[in-house]
Amino acid sequence: MPATANADPVENRVSDWARCFDRRLEDLVMAAEVGPPAQEGGRPAAGADGQRRLWEAMRYSLLAPGKRLRPYLLCRCCELAGGTQETALPVAAAIECVHAFSLIHDDLPAMDDDDLRRGRPTCHVKFGEALAILAGDGLLALAFELMAGGAADADRAAALTRQLAAACGPAGMIGGQADDVCGEGTAPDRVLTESIHERKTARLFEAACRMGGLAAGARGAVLEALGAYGRELGRAFQIADDLLDVTANADTLGKGVAKDAAAGKQTYPRCVGIEDSRRAARAHAERAVAALASFGAPADDLRELAVFATRRSR
Amino acid sequence: MPATANADPVENRVSDWARCFDRRLEDLVMAAEVGPPAQEGGRPAAGADGQRRLWEAMRYSLLAPGKRLRPYLLCRCCELAGGTQETALPVAAAIECVHAFSLIHDDLPAMDDDDLRRGRPTCHVKFGEALAILAGDGLLALAFELMAGGAADADRAAALTRQLAAACGPAGMIGGQADDVCGEGTAPDRVLTESIHERKTARLFEAACRMGGLAAGARGAVLEALGAYGRELGRAFQIADDLLDVTANADTLGKGVAKDAAAGKQTYPRCVGIEDSRRAARAHAERAVAALASFGAPADDLRELAVFATRRSR
Repeated sequence: MPATANADPVENRVSDWARCFDRRLEDLVMAAEVGPPAQEGGRPAAGADGQRRLWEAMRYSLLAPGKRLRPYLLCRCCELAGGTQETALPVAAAIECVHAFSLIHDDLPAMDDDDLRRGRPTCHVKFGEALAILAGDGLLALAFELMAGGAADADRAAALTRQLAAACGPAGMIGGQADDVCGEGTAPDRVLTESIHERKTARLFEAACRMGGLAAGARGAVLEALGAYGRELGRAFQIADDLLDVTANADTLGKGVAKDAAAGKQTYPRCVGIEDSRRAARAHAERAVAALASFGAPADDLRELAVFATRRSR
Repeated sequence: MPATANADPVENRVSDWARCFDRRLEDLVMAAEVGPPAQEGGRPAAGADGQRRLWEAMRYSLLAPGKRLRPYLLCRCCELAGGTQETALPVAAAIECVHAFSLIHDDLPAMDDDDLRRGRPTCHVKFGEALAILAGDGLLALAFELMAGGAADADRAAALTRQLAAACGPAGMIGGQADDVCGEGTAPDRVLTESIHERKTARLFEAACRMGGLAAGARGAVLEALGAYGRELGRAFQIADDLLDVTANADTLGKGVAKDAAAGKQTYPRCVGIEDSRRAARAHAERAVAALASFGAPADDLRELAVFATRRSR
């Protein structure tokens, strides 16, 4: 989502941050491509073609223009909890790798079969299905590699790894995608839809915010508050995404439109209609704002982001 | 590979160990399915159908009869380095999850398109392609979840995570699969074949042995020796696998035969012929045995395993 004169001020702020983050993200991925040091079992790559094309496919999807919301949340929550963005960067890169992995695999022909993503051909359209599957796999593994190498404190690294693995694993995001795929073509079911939103989106938003706190050494109530913010924001965003699929056009969305409805997906508007979906998104955004009560003015941008989450779907 | 009266004694020993390990593996997976504790952001599963089928697909592939060589190596190397098998179990379960993930994704229609694995329908034949992709993803994420929760010592947990992520990531196993897929149909190339063997197989064998050492708190020369053993054993095994594809029949192999040749894969026999492949496997096995020189009699079973690696391909 490029920053333009017409864009929302919140969107502009996140977008400016995202372009700085992208440079660091690219550096971290380049360092990973060079490989781990020899004492950890790494050896120079033989430069085979598949290897090179795999990294190309990974970079294509990871570095594609994107909102970088999860890394933004992670870095800002780290600051709110008393840490620095610098501490949080490898962890923020890791969560963006997980997000990119999920997009590549969700777009595959066997899943949502999407040809467009962020206005460009999806990974399997560009590189073929085999490399796209492997690029997703590679980004998931890279996430854990970045994270294990990133934290100075081993206790924090272990807590961060547990948090990310649980959020993206079979009980989290990957499980949500399984529910999403298996729920296609069945009757609209609000409980199932909310469970899919919870797992596919809210868990990773929640994890991003908690991981920001963890990277700063936060515990207890601070982690809970940040996690609650992320979870409610994630729910609001996913409902807004469902609404955008119904109300937007391909130019503004950068991907296929009304594909969810055509695929018989479980979506919020299908379950409760457009107006009630907007009300639900606003309610989640309000709860996200309320969760930040103890953080005062430094959390204003995150509060605005929650309000923006509902505004963008109009 | 069931233990039978006709099986090799080394095979019997590993097979007996594997059946005990399988019970622990099943327990660890069941505990993961119940979910992380609430304080880590886990909440009870809503019991949606996709979620349930995802775990079913993961268990189907992970708990399918198998040699469990990587966990065996990991646990035995942990003992050789002065640790206990109990310490190593969650880490051993994690490496088997990574192995199962790689088998599921390698078998997919877009990759090797295999219908049979360990004598049973492959995951995508049994559960469909979407769930098979997600089951692989889920097992990869679960591996890191098990590992981060498993080690008592956070420094060791971080080192173990780095080691596993590097071995299975884009510079390791996943990169090797990319070379394998992209190398199909090209002229036989020994350097490329050795690089594929190195990444697809040897890195994870090496990581298994090093991780056993790491779980016991080993460093330096001990880790190097265990890693060298695993690497050479992995190379010997992969050449033997290539040979089995040419010389075995489907009953003994439990999967399709001569599929590598039909697919125009880069294999050792295609590059150097059957006799030179056997010689190369023996040379790697001898180097594996030599790497264990400092461990004395307690490492005899691992030495026998290296010899068995070449014997099974006759």
